[in-house]
Amino acid sequence: MRLSQFHLHTSKETPADAEIASHRLMLRAGLIRKLAAGLYTWSPLGLRVLRRVEAVVREEMERAGAVELLMPSVQPRELWEETGRWEKFGGQLLKIQDRKESWYCYGPTHEEVITDFARAELASYRQLPVTFFQIQTKFRDEIRPRFGVMRAREFLMKDAYSFDIDDAGMAAQYQRMYDAYVRIFTRLQLEFRAVEADTGAIGGSASHEFHVLADSGEDAIAFSTATDYAANVELAQAAEPAARAAPSEDMRRVETPTQKTCDDVAALLGIPLARTVRTVAVMGAEGFTVVLMRGDHALNEIKLAKLPGLGDYRMATEAEIADHLGSEPGFLGPVAPARAIRVVADREVAAMADFVVGANVPGFHLAGVNWGRDLPEPDSVADLRNVAEGDRATDGGEIRIARGIEVGHVFQLGRRYAEAMGFTVLDEQGKAVVPAMGCYGIGVSRIVAAAIEQNHDEAGIIWPEPMAPWQVAVCVINPKQNPDVDEAAEALHRELRSAGLDVVLDDRGLRPGPMFADIELIGIPHRVVVSERGLAAGTFEYRARRGGDSENLDRGTLMTRLGIAD
Amino acid sequence: MRLSQFHLHTSKETPADAEIASHRLMLRAGLIRKLAAGLYTWSPLGLRVLRRVEAVVREEMERAGAVELLMPSVQPRELWEETGRWEKFGGQLLKIQDRKESWYCYGPTHEEVITDFARAELASYRQLPVTFFQIQTKFRDEIRPRFGVMRAREFLMKDAYSFDIDDAGMAAQYQRMYDAYVRIFTRLQLEFRAVEADTGAIGGSASHEFHVLADSGEDAIAFSTATDYAANVELAQAAEPAARAAPSEDMRRVETPTQKTCDDVAALLGIPLARTVRTVAVMGAEGFTVVLMRGDHALNEIKLAKLPGLGDYRMATEAEIADHLGSEPGFLGPVAPARAIRVVADREVAAMADFVVGANVPGFHLAGVNWGRDLPEPDSVADLRNVAEGDRATDGGEIRIARGIEVGHVFQLGRRYAEAMGFTVLDEQGKAVVPAMGCYGIGVSRIVAAAIEQNHDEAGIIWPEPMAPWQVAVCVINPKQNPDVDEAAEALHRELRSAGLDVVLDDRGLRPGPMFADIELIGIPHRVVVSERGLAAGTFEYRARRGGDSENLDRGTLMTRLGIAD
Repeated sequence: MRLSQFHLHTSKETPADAEIASHRLMLRAGLIRKLAAGLYTWSPLGLRVLRRVEAVVREEMERAGAVELLMPSVQPRELWEETGRWEKFGGQLLKIQDRKESWYCYGPTHEEVITDFARAELASYRQLPVTFFQIQTKFRDEIRPRFGVMRAREFLMKDAYSFDIDDAGMAAQYQRMYDAYVRIFTRLQLEFRAVEADTGAIGGSASHEFHVLADSGEDAIAFSTATDYAANVELAQAAEPAARAAPSEDMRRVETPTQKTCDDVAALLGIPLARTVRTVAVMGAEGFTVVLMRGDHALNEIKLAKLPGLGDYRMATEAEIADHLGSEPGFLGPVAPARAIRVVADREVAAMADFVVGANVPGFHLAGVNWGRDLPEPDSVADLRNVAEGDRATDGGEIRIARGIEVGHVFQLGRRYAEAMGFTVLDEQGKAVVPAMGCYGIGVSRIVAAAIEQNHDEAGIIWPEPMAPWQVAVCVINPKQNPDVDEAAEALHRELRSAGLDVVLDDRGLRPGPMFADIELIGIPHRVVVSERGLAAGTFEYRARRGGDSENLDRGTLMTRLGIAD
Repeated sequence: MRLSQFHLHTSKETPADAEIASHRLMLRAGLIRKLAAGLYTWSPLGLRVLRRVEAVVREEMERAGAVELLMPSVQPRELWEETGRWEKFGGQLLKIQDRKESWYCYGPTHEEVITDFARAELASYRQLPVTFFQIQTKFRDEIRPRFGVMRAREFLMKDAYSFDIDDAGMAAQYQRMYDAYVRIFTRLQLEFRAVEADTGAIGGSASHEFHVLADSGEDAIAFSTATDYAANVELAQAAEPAARAAPSEDMRRVETPTQKTCDDVAALLGIPLARTVRTVAVMGAEGFTVVLMRGDHALNEIKLAKLPGLGDYRMATEAEIADHLGSEPGFLGPVAPARAIRVVADREVAAMADFVVGANVPGFHLAGVNWGRDLPEPDSVADLRNVAEGDRATDGGEIRIARGIEVGHVFQLGRRYAEAMGFTVLDEQGKAVVPAMGCYGIGVSRIVAAAIEQNHDEAGIIWPEPMAPWQVAVCVINPKQNPDVDEAAEALHRELRSAGLDVVLDDRGLRPGPMFADIELIGIPHRVVVSERGLAAGTFEYRARRGGDSENLDRGTLMTRLGIAD
């Protein structure tokens, strides 16, 4: 490919509304151009990158036995009403009325359409298992589209759907897709984690998100130094606490006139924050409840809400607190409440001895408190906290917390859609059964942005090689002044191409400064300069985009450096 | 590819609402499935065919120097208002309101978006010429979607747009695209014609449609037996008529009491229809006009409307006819009208001598009429007729008329869009000039249907080889009863694959009848049967889908038949 016959449009200006590196660099490198809010044209350069990602995704889907099809982007309202999602999906669903005043939507996802297809074409267990996938433009009417293609309204997605006769089959296909996702992100040379995810309102049985690690990521994820374990911070669990020690202190009342937080109390008493206990008063279905957290731990509201009777909990009011504990916020505790209360303890608190807690008397805390002796054992014990950097992980490693960008999601849907849409197949006994489904998404266009977030420097993008628009740029210095230089560059271009490399010849005739700046900005992994001086010395100037100085290499060494056996 | 691991879903039923062969066969072969009016899912089998067409189109676009990009499918109203097409495009434009109540459309075409892209990225003549293309899903809200993907609402299209500094450049790129289209349809092995098309309301300077010839085609096209000349019947011209002969008869009045049509008059007088002249009375901007056509020729209203003063003509009323000619329909003629009239003659009529025409007296015609002698020469002479099968063509050949399916359109747009959207570039002199544009469309999904219209028989589809989902089907008879047969089939499958053929192994274990019926229905060009009997005899049963009986071939002959050098 000759760059003079391509359409490259880079810019030195940093776009004002681009908040993150990938958005800025995609605009500066000319990969995308904004058409309207959340709508982007992929330039020829950007499309080359997008297609590379798409090709890897397609290959691995096929390797995993998935079969590609293509569903319409416009979907009829009737199907969405069968699953109740026409209303429930919310404002992201772009609704469309056609000339006959029938309602449609621009598909944000295709569970309804694929289930409709499946109920028409799949009738017997003999046709299962099967996994369909497509790579297609989707639309979500984001209330605040931003970060370029990272959160665009129109975007390219790979969505796959599996159908199985039973749960075991669904789990097997889920695992196959999970493994395919690992291969995809590994092949794309991205640092990523498969993260246990909340199955949320859909209530499926298992779900993992795939995150590309990057400081600008919107999600915090916890992972272990020992194994591949990773989970959304909100779901992650640390290792069980050590067993509770025996009491070694007597309970005593300490004066804390203005110390209303664990931090202040620990400072006053000269003890570690980890020796204090915070009392959170809430109202749940079973009435007034206190939740006990170690002073240095953060309460995880998602975990709390999973406890019986606390699904719809709310904070208790000061009046309710006064009524049940006879005290006021800042000095609350589980010891000797005014009335009978329910006590829920984080498992770390349940394992504590000699701890400090509010005395239920304004201006006082209790120290040396011990379970069983000074108050009854808690009514319920559970993991209720957010993990923190440095916690011991369940696998024996240490927990690290990083930010991630969600680029993939695999989900065991179960029978929700098939049931709602009346889809059954005959099993081996000739009985109609509802198949179990999985769904598996990858944000193809988002991967491009995520890769840049993880791989860039001051000069621009540093593509992982499998995503680069070209692997090698051959830069010609003053092509018009010396035909030998031009010829040598063309010969090298041809040679690299026939060795199977994807090469671009920068024959635009720019001065070296702007030419090199462009090639760095657009992130080409390998740069080779052909100049009059090099030609005289029998060398080519080589530089890797990912670090390293430029070197003058003879032909053989250059070939070796580019991975070509001579 | 093993068919047991693919999703094939054929049907014996002929769908009731499918009016044409391609629609019927695409449904029966399971290439597509209807989701809603004009919306189709492409099954795995259908998508394989669609992708083959897409690949050929992409390769030829790139060979012609066009650069691929990808524009959003959703386009903002503001752009369409710049060109006035938000209103003018009509009901086919699917309008969409987003959650912020801004208006968009689902792009039926991308002139506005590409011109917006170009005005942002192209600033100098140095960046020209350039041709951008994309292969993308489009939407046209057809009032009556039908014929399956032939006239669907959502469809796959290749659209390309060229930008040039001047008309000569535009014409050169137009020619390059024209040539690329010829290569595309030639490679797809379709019988097609490039047809001169009307530039219509857009008023561009040149336009060709590419039609696949098929009896079910919606358009009639005229082409010559001598050269590649072809034109839409409405635009086609026959050769000039021979020079007018000298008068040989006197004008005389003949009684035609009930003979109101040329047919009846010719029959009564015992003369060829080609000796009669039909008089059509119209009202145009310049008033009452009679248009004269040879009795056996059809008036072409498009040609007529191109004459000065007849752009908005209408048929004259009986009152207007009585007023100007003093006669009534059935007996009209240009001789001795009641008042001065304008006479427009088709050039064939202008070349006639001794012809028959209405006498302007009810019950009478005039015979032996001659120009100049019996009436003045016509006020204007033009080609006003539809060509007919057997006419002499301008290139000396004979005109044939066939029906065609429009699958491509190339168009010299000129400066209409660039001007409306204020897009200029600097020319060599540093002056801002409006670039000249071309646009070039191919209906990728429609090609699939058109190919079937042209290539099918009672048993099903007969794919042109470059479009076939697989080139070869290896059918195994009773694979489970004899492991040797199974192994031999697998070995052949592997061997053909490594020779570069796209092969499917039908290992579904069907009986020969249904298995062969499926393979014929889905149109695989080459079928090879591996059976116990064949194995014993050392032969394979081979049959070409396009005609021919099945033959038992030894391995070497089979390879030769499949184009593989041993």
